[in-house]
Order: sequence, then structure tokens, then C-alpha cells
Amino acid sequence: MVLYLIGLGLSSPEDITVRGLKAVQKCERVYLEAYTSILMAATKEDLESLYDREVILADRELVESGSDQILENAENVDIAFLVVGDPFGATTHTDLIIRARELGIPVEAIHNASVMNAVGACGLQLYNFGQTVSLVFFMDNWKPDSFYDRIKENRELGLHTLVLLDIKVKEQSFENMARGRKIYEPPRYMNIETAASQLLEIETLRKGSAYLPETPCVSISRLGSPQQKFIAGTLAEMAELESGDPLHSLVILGHRTHEMEVEYLLEFAKDKEGFKNAVTKEVEAAKAAQMAAVAEEEDDD
Amino acid sequence: MVLYLIGLGLSSPEDITVRGLKAVQKCERVYLEAYTSILMAATKEDLESLYDREVILADRELVESGSDQILENAENVDIAFLVVGDPFGATTHTDLIIRARELGIPVEAIHNASVMNAVGACGLQLYNFGQTVSLVFFMDNWKPDSFYDRIKENRELGLHTLVLLDIKVKEQSFENMARGRKIYEPPRYMNIETAASQLLEIETLRKGSAYLPETPCVSISRLGSPQQKFIAGTLAEMAELESGDPLHSLVILGHRTHEMEVEYLLEFAKDKEGFKNAVTKEVEAAKAAQMAAVAEEEDDD
Repeated sequence: MVLYLIGLGLSSPEDITVRGLKAVQKCERVYLEAYTSILMAATKEDLESLYDREVILADRELVESGSDQILENAENVDIAFLVVGDPFGATTHTDLIIRARELGIPVEAIHNASVMNAVGACGLQLYNFGQTVSLVFFMDNWKPDSFYDRIKENRELGLHTLVLLDIKVKEQSFENMARGRKIYEPPRYMNIETAASQLLEIETLRKGSAYLPETPCVSISRLGSPQQKFIAGTLAEMAELESGDPLHSLVILGHRTHEMEVEYLLEFAKDKEGFKNAVTKEVEAAKAAQMAAVAEEEDDD
Repeated sequence: MVLYLIGLGLSSPEDITVRGLKAVQKCERVYLEAYTSILMAATKEDLESLYDREVILADRELVESGSDQILENAENVDIAFLVVGDPFGATTHTDLIIRARELGIPVEAIHNASVMNAVGACGLQLYNFGQTVSLVFFMDNWKPDSFYDRIKENRELGLHTLVLLDIKVKEQSFENMARGRKIYEPPRYMNIETAASQLLEIETLRKGSAYLPETPCVSISRLGSPQQKFIAGTLAEMAELESGDPLHSLVILGHRTHEMEVEYLLEFAKDKEGFKNAVTKEVEAAKAAQMAAVAEEEDDD
């Protein structure tokens, strides 16, 4: 039969598409990928009641090494694999699809909104975004910073960067893992203030001016839910925010920011004058740098 | 009451979300933005029958200068403004939102999939995409090529580029426009072969090696519909394709292409060996260029 990969959208159970709902209602088994994101305003029971189906929570272990278990008997029955956002969003489930292909099971994707496109709601044009990066929770001796060079690349081109923030669901402590105890830590969702602080920490270490405390940003909180909130401010202000309930993402602006984008963002700025000045400074610094580069080139000739 | 901006997703009437459908069904007036994209597998009548509402087609003129007409009596009734894809997708309707804000009318967005995130279905990671560009139909004396520098920026960083292809709906010929005749040309949707030819034409003119005939690409046809088709091949091969019914988009690969991405794409390559070689050449050329740059820097020291 068919393996349906169904995007659930961002927030409520009813963010599923009509087509997605019809598909899930005819499936024999329904898995919900429950470790790369969460549906903000829905419990497993809410989904089960809308679908009239039992929902099986699929953790990382099952998804990454249990493809055959998920696909069991798929020759004879339809199976749904639900993913928050779009099925090909922040994380793809390529292994599962490749395994289905090998077994000759047709795969059908039913798309939905994800942060990658819905972020446009803050007023920034999707055209002006560069590559998306991820930021994980730092530990005392493990502070992965590969995002830094990528933000720098985007910023040098004047493009905005969408920063996706870490989610830790069903993680074990090192001690419990070492002792083989299946005890899991409470879930953690990175907030804006932690993200901004970590970003600033790496800038202090790397000193590459990829971004600065005065760089304009927009916080994206609870996108697509009734509690959605955007705040426009500098990165330093973001580090002092109280961003509240998850989920969050952060956008670091680039100097190609269009006037209309700024106009729209001002609605979300606590300090409108300050935010406008921060953007203007960026734009002017970029122009000055360009002129200097041209002058140098002419000197070389 | 509320102005609902509702994303319709990519293809069928039932790609609307359950929440979106409920909202549209309680609206007094329902507008469909009908000039930046089309819903591939649905007529106006299909939508009307699903919504149990009359659907008013909103052309560019109405959307760009008729905000007040759309928002008429919004103090007392709910109004829906439907957009193919996501309401903040390729084109934003910022003017309408800003006008609603001015009038004190609450705006609620109901998100959906758009090509900007659903393109992940071809197997390329959304993380590896740079800025998105648009390509318009060339005319004899008007060949706008601002996309060229942006593709070059993406490619220099090794990132993929999503190229959105032009749609002309309800356009007048110059002659009819000059004579004030409201006669409209038949709709035109750019296909892959035209897009690839135009891209190659500009490379021949600009000679910046932003991309070459042998650059690996993926054609994205009828994304999200039952007739969805991806083809992996070189840009030169894309110029010879018969890509069929609209809508289409094109992805130009960058040299950061991951092995798993290539693995996935091979399924869509007519000439698998050739495609694999094209990708390998790109990756190796990028490595060689990087080594040369490092060597030059060392020379400078």
C-alpha cells in the first residue's frame, strides 16, 4: 500500500491539511516523529481524537534504526508517519524513504508549513534569507560553533539568517547512558535569551565580527500559534529578553534589509528609534565597506 | 472582525488546512489572489464547492490598489484572502496587511506549504540552500539578469539555488495597453527548458562562470501534485527537457552537496553516471580552488 509522510504544520491539531487528515484516517498504523520538534498546542490525545486512530510516538531510536518495524506489513496496509512542520523541513527522514523504496513501497508526501517558510510572517522577505543554521545547547566543554562561519557568509552578502534553536527530548544524562539506565531528562527547548547569549559568547571567542551586540534581530516565538510573538531588537537586547514558552527561532538581519521590511518590523520593536538606528548603521557600514573595496581595487589598477 | 490570510498549499483544493477550511467557511467574502501563482489541480468552482462560498478572483490591480475594497465592512464581517502556497511565500501582501493594521482590523495568518519549503522533497537539504531567485520571461530588448549575481554568490559559497520561474496571468500586450483595450494575453508559465536556456544565455553574456552548461541541476515539476516529477541532470540537459504541464521550478546545485543528497537524486537522473560525475567534478573543482587560495595566501605571507 502506501507510506504517507504527513506534515502537521506548526501548532494546533487542525493545522493538518484536509488531504492529510483523510490519509491518516485510513492508515492502519500512525507514527508521530516526536524528537526533532513538537506541536505546540496539541497533545497525543488531541491528535488521536481528531484522527480516530491510535498515535505511536516515534523516538530517535525507532526512526533511525527501526525503519523495518515502521514499515512492517506495508505491502498490505497504509502507514502514516507524521512530522511536525513539513516532512522535508528542518530534518529529513531520508533513511526511512530510502528503505521504503528498497522494499518497493510507494511513498507519498503531504506537505505543510514549517518555520522555513512561515518565518515570512515577521515581515522579512524570504528572498532575502541566506542559508539556515542550527544552534545547539552548549555544555561546559562542548560548544559547537559551525553556525558561526555560515552566519558570517550570509551577513557578508547582506542576507538574513534564520537560526533554528535546539530541542532536547528524551535525552539521557551521560551518567545514565554510561550505566545503561533508561532514565530520560526533562525536555528542554532553547529560548531566545540563551540563543543570543551563546551567539555573543562565540563572537567573543572568534572575534570575526560575524555579528555584534548591536546587530538587529527578530525573535520568533510560538510561530503559527495564537500566542505567536515577534520582537525586533538588537542581539544584546535579545540576550535580555523573557521569551516565554517554546518554540522559538531567531533571525539575524543582513544589511540588504529593505525599507518595507523595516517598516513592518517597527511594529514589533520595543525601542523603535533604537531599532531603526541599528538597521541604518548596518546599511551605512556596508555601503562604506563597499566603497572602500572599490577604492582599493582602483588603487591596485 | 478578522482578515484571514489563508495559505492554500500547492495543488489540490484539499491541500488547505482543516483550520483554514473552517475559517474560510465563516467568512462573508472570500478573495483568491490569482496572479502570482495557481493551484495546479483546482478550478475556482472546485474551491467554491469545498468552501460552500463564492470565490472572488483578485487580480494584481485589485490587490495592489484595492485594499479598501477588499477590507470593506471588515469591522462587521470576516474576510478571507486566499493565497496559493503560504500567505508569506514568494510574494508578500504587505500592503494589504499594513492597511488592515491602519484600520484596526485584526489579521490572522493560516500557514501552508510553499515551494520554499516543499522543495526539500527532491532530496536536497533545505539547510544547503542560499538565497532564492526569480527568473522572468525575457523579451527581445529586456533581459533582466539580477538573479545572476545572486546565483554566483550562492555558488561561490557552495550552496544550492532555488530558481522560481515566471508566471504571466492576465497580462496585456503593449499594444493593447497603449490603446487602453482591456484584452488580456493567454496565461504563460515558464517551463524548465526556457529557464535553462535563459540562464545559459546570460552566462554567455556575462561570462562570470556563475554556472556552466555542465552544472548539476534538478527540475521540480508540479510539486506536491500527483503528477509531481523531479529530473536530475546538467543545466545543458535541462535546456533540452520536455518538462510538460506547469508549475515548474529549477534548483542549481552548489558544491557543498552532501553524498546523501546525491544518493537520493540519482533516482531522478536519466544518466546516473553522468550526473554523479558532474557533481564530483564540481566538488573537486571547489576543493582545488580552495587549495589554490590557501597557497596564494601563504605566498603573500
